[in-house]
Order: sequence, then C-alpha cells, then structure tokens
Amino acid sequence: MFLRNCWYAAAWSNDLADAPLPRIFLDEKVVLFRTASGRPAALADQCCHRAAPLSRGAIQGENLACGYHGLQFDTSGRCVLVPGQTQVPPGAQVRSYPVHERWNVVWIWMGNPALADPDKIPALTWLADSKWTVTPGMIQVHSNYEFIVDNLLDLTHVTYVHKKTLAGDPREATAPTRTERLPNGVRVGRWMLDFVPPPLFAKAGNFKENVDRWQFVTWTPLSTVVLDVGCAKAGTGAPEGDRSQGISIWSTHLVTPQTQTSSQYMFSYARDFALDDAEMSRLLLEGTHATFMEDADIIEALQTNREGGSLDGLIDITADAAQLQARRMLKRMIDEESRSVAAE
Amino acid sequence: MFLRNCWYAAAWSNDLADAPLPRIFLDEKVVLFRTASGRPAALADQCCHRAAPLSRGAIQGENLACGYHGLQFDTSGRCVLVPGQTQVPPGAQVRSYPVHERWNVVWIWMGNPALADPDKIPALTWLADSKWTVTPGMIQVHSNYEFIVDNLLDLTHVTYVHKKTLAGDPREATAPTRTERLPNGVRVGRWMLDFVPPPLFAKAGNFKENVDRWQFVTWTPLSTVVLDVGCAKAGTGAPEGDRSQGISIWSTHLVTPQTQTSSQYMFSYARDFALDDAEMSRLLLEGTHATFMEDADIIEALQTNREGGSLDGLIDITADAAQLQARRMLKRMIDEESRSVAAE
Amino acid sequence: MFLRNCWYAAAWSNDLADAPLPRIFLDEKVVLFRTASGRPAALADQCCHRAAPLSRGAIQGENLACGYHGLQFDTSGRCVLVPGQTQVPPGAQVRSYPVHERWNVVWIWMGNPALADPDKIPALTWLADSKWTVTPGMIQVHSNYEFIVDNLLDLTHVTYVHKKTLAGDPREATAPTRTERLPNGVRVGRWMLDFVPPPLFAKAGNFKENVDRWQFVTWTPLSTVVLDVGCAKAGTGAPEGDRSQGISIWSTHLVTPQTQTSSQYMFSYARDFALDDAEMSRLLLEGTHATFMEDADIIEALQTNREGGSLDGLIDITADAAQLQARRMLKRMIDEESRSVAAE
Repeated sequence: MFLRNCWYAAAWSNDLADAPLPRIFLDEKVVLFRTASGRPAALADQCCHRAAPLSRGAIQGENLACGYHGLQFDTSGRCVLVPGQTQVPPGAQVRSYPVHERWNVVWIWMGNPALADPDKIPALTWLADSKWTVTPGMIQVHSNYEFIVDNLLDLTHVTYVHKKTLAGDPREATAPTRTERLPNGVRVGRWMLDFVPPPLFAKAGNFKENVDRWQFVTWTPLSTVVLDVGCAKAGTGAPEGDRSQGISIWSTHLVTPQTQTSSQYMFSYARDFALDDAEMSRLLLEGTHATFMEDADIIEALQTNREGGSLDGLIDITADAAQLQARRMLKRMIDEESRSVAAE
Repeated sequence: MFLRNCWYAAAWSNDLADAPLPRIFLDEKVVLFRTASGRPAALADQCCHRAAPLSRGAIQGENLACGYHGLQFDTSGRCVLVPGQTQVPPGAQVRSYPVHERWNVVWIWMGNPALADPDKIPALTWLADSKWTVTPGMIQVHSNYEFIVDNLLDLTHVTYVHKKTLAGDPREATAPTRTERLPNGVRVGRWMLDFVPPPLFAKAGNFKENVDRWQFVTWTPLSTVVLDVGCAKAGTGAPEGDRSQGISIWSTHLVTPQTQTSSQYMFSYARDFALDDAEMSRLLLEGTHATFMEDADIIEALQTNREGGSLDGLIDITADAAQLQARRMLKRMIDEESRSVAAE
Repeated sequence: MFLRNCWYAAAWSNDLADAPLPRIFLDEKVVLFRTASGRPAALADQCCHRAAPLSRGAIQGENLACGYHGLQFDTSGRCVLVPGQTQVPPGAQVRSYPVHERWNVVWIWMGNPALADPDKIPALTWLADSKWTVTPGMIQVHSNYEFIVDNLLDLTHVTYVHKKTLAGDPREATAPTRTERLPNGVRVGRWMLDFVPPPLFAKAGNFKENVDRWQFVTWTPLSTVVLDVGCAKAGTGAPEGDRSQGISIWSTHLVTPQTQTSSQYMFSYARDFALDDAEMSRLLLEGTHATFMEDADIIEALQTNREGGSLDGLIDITADAAQLQARRMLKRMIDEESRSVAAE
C-alpha cells in the first residue's frame, strides 16, 4: 500500500532535458518530459493506440509524439494529432499526472489531481540558493522505500555499515540521540561535544583540534529526509546556534517508491564552504557515493529476507525510536487516505 | 489461445541438417531432426524414460537417440531400442508432430494430425524457383505473434520506426493504402507514382530519376506474410502490370508463436535482379536486419505493456484497417476450432 | 517434500574458516560459522532485529555479530549483546540448527533438534584416514536432489553421457549389474573381469594388460552416495577380496537439497595409491570435474522438463532397478516422518 496523495520527487530538474524519461512510480509506468517552452509534464508511459511506451517517442513542441505511429499528446494527455487522418478518434487520451518544479526538483503527484497543492512541497530552500553549492545524484535501490527511510533515521548503523568510510571518534558508537515528533515529520539528532573530527570534515574545514559535531535528521512524509551535519571548533557556541566557526553539509534524500521492492533514490549534498571548489565537489561526491553503496548493499540484502517493507515478526531496539515514530505516522496517513478513498 | 490446426513454419530446410534442433512452438517443447535418409521429423522434446531433452541426443540412421541412456525413437515417436535389454517396455512412446517440407521450409502441424493436409501449406513458389535469389534468416522476438503480424500489415509505422533505414520520398508518410479481404487472408497495399526512389532501390536498380513504387502486403493465416515491394521507371506501365523496367523484392515473413509473449520469426528476401551478386545479397541482408531490429525493438517494448497479444482498452486509427481485418479473421478461425474441439 | 530428520552435509570442514557462509538448505536460509574456539554452528540467516542476513556479519569470539547494527548471537541463536543498550530485548533470538563435525564434514540437522543423534551420521572413515588421500570439491546443480542420486545409482548412462571422458572397454555398455537392498540404503554394482582398463586407471596403476574391474555404488539416505571403483591385475583374486595388486578410488557424493530444483553437491575422491603425488591429485580433480559437468549438464537439462524430482508419467527400464529401490525407500521415510509430525 502506497501513500498516493503526496508529492514525490520525480527527477532533478537538470536531468529533464530534451528527451523523455521512462520512470516507474508506485507500480505505474510514467513518462516524464519537458516541452519546448520548458514546461515539465508526466503521462502514463503507454500510447492509447498500440501501447508503445511514449518514452520511446520524441518531444514535438509542446507535445510528446509516439515513436510507433506519430500520435501526439499534449501535457494533459489528450491526443492532438493522428498522422494521416484529419480527426482524432474520440477517447484518444492517456492519463496525465500533476507535476510541479520547485527547488530544482520535478515533483509528481500520483494521487487525486484535485488535491495536488504545490504548497505541500517540502521547503528545501538550500537546493536553489546561491549561498550553497549542491551536488546531486541518483541511484536505484532494490528495496522497499521504508527500509531506506529507516536507514536514514538510524544513526547507529554507521559504526557497522560504514566502518570503512565514516570512521570518526570511537565515542560516536554510543553517543545518545534524541527523537522529536514534528507536526509533519520526525527529527532525530545529537550533539557530540569536543570530539575528534572525522577525516573528511577535518580536511574540508581545516580543523586541527577537536570539534563540536552535530547530526540532525529530519523526515518529512513521504519522500524527503534531510540531514544537517557539521562541526565547529570546540567551544565556539555551535550548540547555542553560532556556526560561524564551523562548516555545514545539508544532505537531501528524496526516496520515491517504484515498486514494493525497489525505489528511486535521489540525493544531493549542499555545502556552505568552498563553494566554487570543484575538487571539494568531487571529494564529496566520491565519498558519499561509496557510503551510499554500503547502505544500498545491506538494505538490498535485508530486502531479500522480507516481503515489501514489513517489520512483522522482528524485534525493536532503543535506537529504532525515530524510525518507529516515522512508520507510525506514515501508517496513519495511509490508513486515513484509504478511508477517505473508500468514503468517496 | 493459439490456432492449432494449421501449418507453422518450423525451420528453413537448410538449417535442419545432421543435428537435432530444440524449438518451442505454441508452448510445447519440440525437437526437429532430419533422418539419415533426409526425412524431416518432429517429436516432443522429452524422452519418455527420464525426461531428458531429445534435442541433446544424436541422429542414428532413421532414429533419434536420447543422449542420456541411448533409447532410440523413430519418426513416429515410437521407442524402437532400449540399450541393454531385449524388449522395449510397453508405452515407450513420445508424441510426434506431422511435418512437411515445401518451398525450402519445414512446416509443422501442432493440431489434430488427421487434419494435416499438405495442400494447405501456402504457395510460396519464389522460395524454390531459380528465377529468384533468396536470402533467409531467423530471429526470436519477445512479443506475441499478433503484434508482429500487425506491424507487417501496417505501412504507416515506417515513417516513425524506420526513419534511419528506410527514408524515402516525404510524401510516403501520407500516401493512401487500400485494404482487401481475401478468401483466406488480407491484403493491403498502395501505389506511389512518380516518387523519389529510396536509396537501396535507387542503388539496386540504378534509377537516376523518379519511379513508380508499389508496396503490397498479403497475410495468410497464420504464419505467413508476404511483401511484394518494388519500383519501376516512372510511367513505364508498372501499375498496369508491366514490371519489365523495374525491380521486385518479395519478402516472406513466417511467424510462429513460441509462447504468448515470444515468437520465432523467419524471414527471407527474394529478388529478381542481380541474381548471382553476393554483394547485393550482403547489402540486402544487412539492410533488412537493421530494419528488423528496429521493428523488434518497438514491438518488444510495447509487449511489456500488454498481456499476450490483446488490444483491449486501446483505440484504433484509420491505418489499422488491414490488421483489424486480419485479427477478426484469426479470431473467427480460433473460435471455430475451439467449438469443433469442444464438439468432439 | 523433504526429509527433515536426517543429517545433511553442510560444508567441508576446511571451507568453514573465519568468515560466515550463507547457504540454502531445504528452502531455508542458513548461515554457517565457526567460532574462535573452533566450534561450528548454524543459524537462520536473518537477524531478528532488521532481517539483515547474518552471513554479512562477522565472527566475534564465540558469537556472530550482525553487520547492520552489531547485535551478537551465540551458537544457540540467543542474542547476547545489543550495542548501545544494557539489556537485550526479550525474544531476541534466531533459530539455530544442530550441527556436528565428523569425517572432515560439517553436518546439519534441519528437522527436530531432539532427534539429532550424531551416531546417525554415515561412516565415511576414508575421509579422515591417513591411508587415503582426499581431494574435495563442491558445485551447485540446478536440479532436484533425486535426479542427482538417480544418476549416481545408474551405471548405464556412462556410455552416453561420458563418452568423451570415461571411454573404457566396449563391453562395459552391457555388463550386467546387481542391485541389493541394504538395511539403510541401496547398493548396486558389478564386476567386469579381464577388461581393458580405462585410460585413467591404466595410467594411475601402471596396468599394461587387462584388469578385473569393479564398480559398487552405495546410497545411504539421504545425502550420501559412495562409489567404490577400481581395478586389479586380472586373475589376482580381486573378486574374492584380494585387492593387493590393484588400486581403489572411493568417491563420496554428498547431495543436499537447496530447493526442489537446486542442490548443493559436495564430492571427494579418496585414493589408496600415489598418496603424496600432487600431480595425481590434479589429474583426478580435473578428470572428475569434467565428468561432473557432463552429469550436471544433462541433469539440469532434464530438470527443465520436470516439476521437482517427480518421475510421474515416465516409463522405467531394467537399468533403473537401484534408483527405483532408493526412491521407494526415501518415499517411505518421508511418509513416515509426515505421519509422525502429524501425530505430534
């Protein structure tokens, strides 16, 4: 069961250029395209004539043309041209999905179009702000989206899964976290004061001595997890809000279900330092890619032991608090949606 | 649902030599072989003793020997030898299928053997006529056979699917076609008078000026589609039947269902010019192979959106007339066969 | 339906070293590991916390640690440590399987642990006896285990399947065999007196003239088939028990069902000659590997024609006597087990 009435990240804006893109979201085949005038659109990826995937076609002005017989569809999914005949047959139409472009992300609404309010898109201002340098990426993970969200809300797996890439102060393994329920989401995080900085931060921030580190993870249903991580020279007031002697990385994780056992995983790293340093961008991308592959590897392995994203029959530990809050909130939203659909 | 009582193309005669060939037709595993005396045969590809595929065996005179324990079967499927024992156990028998070799094609009958009349094999005289040079080939297409037949009876997809390989006169996209229902089949075609010749024809026929072009497609249930295409110097009477100043290619397409979503696709090109020109054969084979791959690519892509060969829920356009005729005729034949089987 | 209450070969002792091994036995995912003190163990390959495969983890002293969050399990499957918290949650436990190491094999019991009596492990003394040199190996065969056992109990397929590798005296094809039912198994074999020795034996034993050959195959349910094959100078009393002028190879075949259509196949060759001759070991391993691949090839091919290991609808021949005895005995054991489980 998926939550349908919410905005899902469909693509990075830059990836939607002059070719249509095939995607699978919530078990449905979708074609994304951008018209000649720059407008993004999403249609069912199946021509209403002979079922050819429209993603095999080509953009023609404001329309998408099927690659099999040239039928053209506008962004609403209406067939507007059948080559070789003057009239378009009645009912020549494919499903269209609301899309909206914000924060350099193309968002898609897989549910009731009447409810697709762009104001519900999470505020990810740093993705479109010149004070930050952003390095985006995308992978496919063969896992239910809930296991990916679980993993992002879980700070304890770092010691075991990322021992090769994120080795830091040995006290990190047991540094306590605090979980907060937000009006629309869950937040978990911690401060680690006077800690040895991890190598990447030490290098990036030129820290020679201990630092005050922070890690805050915020999940907003359904697609968005934001990590605010960084460190500042120890004792310079970071916990009180003064980050002037520190560096921050805001990493944004946009997880969109493809099927019950596979997910589109878009991510990006926004930094507030070395803004024009291409070498720093490369360093961060390579470092985070290796880390993601470690996550994907274990998550895909556990998925082979599960149906969908269920935790049935498993036990919980203290470190699961944030993910359990998130799962409860998500379950309530899906249940409410089911009830309201049933009521209609 | 497959039509069972009809001749299907099983193999090109040349491909059935001294080794048995495994095949799947209509969801059944079949082994084709040719005995030492040259007689073609088809048996169920499963030994009645320990189920080993007989296609792993070897031809022994007029029999096929299993590669596991050496049991031998004659062309009727009867076990005639069990090595190491004097008597063949009762019931040692595998199913045999009627086969008949004609026009350099081995044909197989998957239905009631009593109805397997060789006179029902379509007349493909040019495949065994010294006035024609024939270049045969075979591919597997991961698609229902009906989509392949649809595609062959559809002259409008050429503009979109084959724009890289079959670019001709721009007026071709909208040149009208005429569909005819035949007593046993469907025919669609058109004349394009005073047109720029497509590059391959220009080269093959040494045409420097415009030509009168023709394209005629004839489908005979179930397995056979013949394309009669060519061109002649404009105004030399080709439409009235005088092809003496032109060149013809008869291409034969023999589609045999393997499963609901895969097909054996045999094809050949017969030409009445440059008969002994090996370079011309190479040119035609390479050109047509590229074209077939374009067809297979789009057909296999649309198959991923469909169950079997169904058009349920799709809309039709004017250009579909021939394929819709063919599908209706085929459906009637399958329905009649079902009724007659049920009546028995 | 698998027999559960019996010892299955899980691994060669040498293959179970300092890394956990993932296995599938009887449709269940199992992790094998050896603790720091050398004790072998087998657990369900799924952490009770977030379902990660424990085979991705690491051995920590006498425990196995999950690679996701570091939970540690002892050899009984009890969770003994959850990093970051002082108490282990109630119910934190994974299933453990009885294992026992004997004859350089780690055996596993997939059924009722209360019945796991090590005295029921077959006596394979030559695998741990300095008078024999043993060369072990393991492959996976995509076939039901019964077809593999059938094949081992069948001396007649050699002529057809192994004509490239085991060519011997032409009279071998029809040399009669004798099948015996044992209290716990089946034995089939034959003597071939005054025969040309096969090339490998001729070379290994330096035989210049004819030999008396023997082949005896003994199946012990469920996992074990032992072949006692060899030859001695003709007329020196081998049939009466005097092998002093001959050489013997005892080959041991340990077949463990993974699923209904795939099996773990462990094998080893024990010889009583050229004990320290590495070249002889290499020769035997290479020769037998080629032979096994021929067996696997035909068995996997016939499996594609069958569901599970069933012989339903097939006919039997005289040469099947031993395998039919074995199948009957096995079926009776499985039926008895089902009844006793149902009675509980």
